[in-house]
Amino acid sequence: MSIAVEDLATPAVLVDLDVLERNIARQAERARAAGIRLRPHAKTHKCPEIARMQLAAGAAGISLAKTSEAEVFAAAGFDDIFIAYPVVGLRKAERLLALSDRLRLAVGTDSVEGASALGRVFHAAGRRLEVMLKIDVGYHRVGVLPEDAVGIALRLADLPGISLRGIFTHAGQVYQAETPDAVAAIGRHEGETLVAAGAVLREAGLSIEEVSVGSTPSARHAMRVSGVTECRPGNYVYHDGSQVTLGTCGPEDCAMTVLATVVSVPAPDRAVVDAGSKTLSSDPLRPHPDGHGLILGSRSRLRSLSEEHGVLRVEDCDSFRVGERVRILPNHACVVSNLHDRLYGVRAGRADTEIRIAARGRIE
Amino acid sequence: MSIAVEDLATPAVLVDLDVLERNIARQAERARAAGIRLRPHAKTHKCPEIARMQLAAGAAGISLAKTSEAEVFAAAGFDDIFIAYPVVGLRKAERLLALSDRLRLAVGTDSVEGASALGRVFHAAGRRLEVMLKIDVGYHRVGVLPEDAVGIALRLADLPGISLRGIFTHAGQVYQAETPDAVAAIGRHEGETLVAAGAVLREAGLSIEEVSVGSTPSARHAMRVSGVTECRPGNYVYHDGSQVTLGTCGPEDCAMTVLATVVSVPAPDRAVVDAGSKTLSSDPLRPHPDGHGLILGSRSRLRSLSEEHGVLRVEDCDSFRVGERVRILPNHACVVSNLHDRLYGVRAGRADTEIRIAARGRIE
Repeated sequence: MSIAVEDLATPAVLVDLDVLERNIARQAERARAAGIRLRPHAKTHKCPEIARMQLAAGAAGISLAKTSEAEVFAAAGFDDIFIAYPVVGLRKAERLLALSDRLRLAVGTDSVEGASALGRVFHAAGRRLEVMLKIDVGYHRVGVLPEDAVGIALRLADLPGISLRGIFTHAGQVYQAETPDAVAAIGRHEGETLVAAGAVLREAGLSIEEVSVGSTPSARHAMRVSGVTECRPGNYVYHDGSQVTLGTCGPEDCAMTVLATVVSVPAPDRAVVDAGSKTLSSDPLRPHPDGHGLILGSRSRLRSLSEEHGVLRVEDCDSFRVGERVRILPNHACVVSNLHDRLYGVRAGRADTEIRIAARGRIE
Repeated sequence: MSIAVEDLATPAVLVDLDVLERNIARQAERARAAGIRLRPHAKTHKCPEIARMQLAAGAAGISLAKTSEAEVFAAAGFDDIFIAYPVVGLRKAERLLALSDRLRLAVGTDSVEGASALGRVFHAAGRRLEVMLKIDVGYHRVGVLPEDAVGIALRLADLPGISLRGIFTHAGQVYQAETPDAVAAIGRHEGETLVAAGAVLREAGLSIEEVSVGSTPSARHAMRVSGVTECRPGNYVYHDGSQVTLGTCGPEDCAMTVLATVVSVPAPDRAVVDAGSKTLSSDPLRPHPDGHGLILGSRSRLRSLSEEHGVLRVEDCDSFRVGERVRILPNHACVVSNLHDRLYGVRAGRADTEIRIAARGRIE
């Protein structure tokens, strides 16, 4: 296909292919320079086509969040997947077993209860499931505290049908960091805490093959800590408004924008576009909420969203007219991917490719 | 199909069919008692099957937000659709023209610029598009102020290819109402302001066939205002946590819940379920933010969401274990529908039907 961007129906998700390729190459180079494996989290794009570009640039495999996402990527031929999520339940275990017939698989865990149920299914089939133990380095979402890791890891390693591959973390607190220095400190803390936990586990006699860090803002700092073996950033393929605010990248590094049409200008300080939370999600800008997306080439932001309406607070220097098209830099690219069936790959003002977001909506 | 709810993969969207049927019957009866037409907003469910239940109960037609949603419902045989949204652009006009070949169609507008572009396409085809002028009764999203309505309505009525059917509003400010009395006052204000605007337009010589009010909380109050001819509530089919908080309904009137599994219990006061913003959206509870969903049968709420994690603040009286299943009352049902490909119709603890959310993701 080749369609001028101005001829696309709105709203539409655009991905600048030059920026995408540059982002993929830079992250691959960063991991190579640090001497670690890159296993990008494909939840950001959910597109096998884009994951293939990441592998071609040197990624060692991919990360995903859900069993059903892994099924989509397995069907697309991916052969090394880490589900960075505590998968729970016997039915899910059966699906994991089927996946493990086709590819090198590992899943996250942070509990003996969770892992033992998975292990029973693998053990009954004469197989072992590789697990990665999640360590909580301060985000306090899932994961075991570093001081509890050795006790749980020893029990995991003893479970029938389970094999402990390593440990991983996600320092999600980095999205609340106020300054680039704070981002760097969280990244170093993530790497150092995880490496120290790995040392304790090895002293206890466990084999820890993988010491894996996560998150786009923290990865470049965490990956430089000696002893880290793998990183799993996801957002970097697209970046977004929050990454710009956090200092991870500049606006020119943002590959994803949303094309929208101004549908109403009811007051001089207000315009409304046809992209609301159904298109952009209602995720806030991080680290501090500030509207729901910047209009490129203007100083105006979406101040509020309802499902189909994005309400612009029109700054004095800007003006908008009904029918005009705008491009929005979203707060959070990953959640935008989850809302859409397709995106358009854009180069030089033309939509060159339509990419199906194949794992969109795979929630199980 | 007939599957025990406990055998469904999680997360899953459940709709209690008894509650759904009761909600549909009650709203239909309310409109009948008020002597007005009910034109439910089908954005809440996006399912032709459920819209057919609404028509069977007496609805006069349906409302939708987007052209592409109308295309889905047209393909499913619906013959009277109001797109309650200011549709803009020549390409969209061509799609509207194709739709109007198949059904009785009207679209919203709040500008001469927007409507004139649509009218040109219809006029060139020797046709007329019926439009409804949106009146802003205090929400300040889209719509013209009541005092500006007559000037714009006269210009709309003169546009080639355009025919003015009536006026409509959506008092979205009702979702910020602090008390049931405030909800009622906003509903009465909505109806009275719109009826007064209609009277001024008729005095100016315009034919105003439809005077249409919206929103589930305000509809029951607005529809009792003499002169209102139609109401367009949407959420009432399911209700949700926000409707309970606003006093629109009781918890027993909520038809939609999300089934999830506890995947981690990392601390006594924290548990994590496999439903995050990809499943529930990050829409806040209204009128005041208070977490992201109540766990039924408990006092615990989801205090934060990331894409695949719902983090429960576990109240002292509650406890959760890994592998346990919970049902979540979402803050906002309409946005949940937009995130899922299917829902399960449940009766007596069994999923009796799987309903495809056919218009999910139709954003254009």
